[in-house]
Amino acid sequence: MSKVAVFGAGSWGTAFSIVLADGGNDVTMWARREEVAATINERRENTDYLPGIELPPAISATHDVEKAAHDADVVIFATPSQTFRDNLAEWAPHIGDGAVMVSLMKGVELGTLNRMSEVIAQVTGAGPERVAVISGPNLAKEIARREPAASVVACEDEGVAKMLQDRCHSPAFRPYTSTDVLGCELGGAYKNVVGLAVGMAVGLGFGDNTTASVITRGLAETARLAMRLGANPLTLMGLAGLGDLVATCSSPLSRNRTFGERLGQGQTAEQIYASTRQVAEGAKSCASLRALAEFNEVDAPVAQYVDDVVSGRLDARQMMDAILARDTKAETD
Amino acid sequence: MSKVAVFGAGSWGTAFSIVLADGGNDVTMWARREEVAATINERRENTDYLPGIELPPAISATHDVEKAAHDADVVIFATPSQTFRDNLAEWAPHIGDGAVMVSLMKGVELGTLNRMSEVIAQVTGAGPERVAVISGPNLAKEIARREPAASVVACEDEGVAKMLQDRCHSPAFRPYTSTDVLGCELGGAYKNVVGLAVGMAVGLGFGDNTTASVITRGLAETARLAMRLGANPLTLMGLAGLGDLVATCSSPLSRNRTFGERLGQGQTAEQIYASTRQVAEGAKSCASLRALAEFNEVDAPVAQYVDDVVSGRLDARQMMDAILARDTKAETD
Repeated sequence: MSKVAVFGAGSWGTAFSIVLADGGNDVTMWARREEVAATINERRENTDYLPGIELPPAISATHDVEKAAHDADVVIFATPSQTFRDNLAEWAPHIGDGAVMVSLMKGVELGTLNRMSEVIAQVTGAGPERVAVISGPNLAKEIARREPAASVVACEDEGVAKMLQDRCHSPAFRPYTSTDVLGCELGGAYKNVVGLAVGMAVGLGFGDNTTASVITRGLAETARLAMRLGANPLTLMGLAGLGDLVATCSSPLSRNRTFGERLGQGQTAEQIYASTRQVAEGAKSCASLRALAEFNEVDAPVAQYVDDVVSGRLDARQMMDAILARDTKAETD
Repeated sequence: MSKVAVFGAGSWGTAFSIVLADGGNDVTMWARREEVAATINERRENTDYLPGIELPPAISATHDVEKAAHDADVVIFATPSQTFRDNLAEWAPHIGDGAVMVSLMKGVELGTLNRMSEVIAQVTGAGPERVAVISGPNLAKEIARREPAASVVACEDEGVAKMLQDRCHSPAFRPYTSTDVLGCELGGAYKNVVGLAVGMAVGLGFGDNTTASVITRGLAETARLAMRLGANPLTLMGLAGLGDLVATCSSPLSRNRTFGERLGQGQTAEQIYASTRQVAEGAKSCASLRALAEFNEVDAPVAQYVDDVVSGRLDARQMMDAILARDTKAETD
């Protein structure tokens, strides 16, 4: 049985470990906190991040980086984006030279404006044939319950994408291959920001017409930036773009939508941070995506206004007015 | 004040009459049943189709076709698609020669496979500068409550589209212009069929990952057919494509989604027809869109399987398996 290491024992890292176990892999999860690893091993459950789900026998957990990475030919990362570079620098010496590294993360690094696949390449020196991403409409709790879901496995090397597809294919989880790493990552990062905007609309009491309009404008903005950077527009119309966006925006389980709802109800970002352990990636990525769009001279009102609300420079109602009232001309101008 | 005639006093015809009244028009609604017209005039409410919403003074209703159409320079149609050709043949002699005719309908005629704008042109002999459609994420009940919404006004003559935009612009309703009548109509018709499929997934107990995957595949299928017929793909990425689809699929208020839910729970189409007065357009259009796709040699599994379920040839669970399991190769093949 092939071994996969999963760095990160949050809800998505844990749910994806279940997919990998169901797909026939031997999975070792690395947890930042020793007690989380101990609970997983002893109780067969991640009581902190995915309570109520029994973990298959093929999953074990450790707090020891060397032990986690040892002999793994596939290494998966599911940790917060903004601290990933520093964390990876510590893990990299223990990762095998031939191992394929896969990001499940959906963020863009503040400051550098790098995507997670770029951070992996920079920190480890790996070529594009060893760097992949997996992204799609995959709410962790539904995946953990083994509800049917599809996702995209992207690597510039199609053969590696196919190998990963085979490794994470299970009865409930259907991965499709792609070579558009950039498109998948931008779709994943942007949907968190659009999810925040949709959450704000919900928090303000607006209905499905309004949220559908915000989703439509958000995806158009995502596609504009992605195409400018060289992505395939079909990726954004697919599972890692539209699909992931719709799942995030529909689900009361989504962290980003929930974060937005609380902003819409008048709470500040600081108040929300203070009351939850889970990370809403969009609350960080809005600033980096806004900067990335500005640097590339792409019009990005959703990222811009969401960043203004998260930073306390604008309130949510002003933002909704600004997004919906923006242009009054032809739709596709 | 300019006069607009609205043929059809169902929930959408009534809600759009409110938009037109808010936009400064004098609105005369034509109702098939005399008692509906009487109730609208006497109680200022459409108790059958839009209860609880007070109608503005600029709206009046009649059962008399001649009276409804007299002096109207804009005539709006909001009736069921499958009986539209016969109805329009009766109304046409009373419609002014210069009047612009606008379809709010979202169906494709069985047998002829014509869109509603084509039916208008055929029955009345009007040129493309007198035929328009309005389509977008516009759930009738939310529009009637004056929640913020956007929509697309499409006419091949851009000047006419702008005139209509001006006529139906209100504080809560924001219309954008387009010249892609075909794209708007196909987006509107297809979303009802995809809404049925999403409803089936919900009725079967599946979550947001599954519904997001069905939406993604459904929009890809819509765009494939629309592009083959000559539409602009950006229309399908916009409010009349993605936007309308997401609103329909998100909303428990949507008739098509509700119809699909009941199919997913194991009811037959006949049982559902027997228990509701409202029309789920998708239950008819699935057969015509399937035929349109087959005629144009476009792969359309969603329309095909939805039609099979509605006709009782397949049960909803088999359909979901078939749609989700369909291909296992690269996503954008």
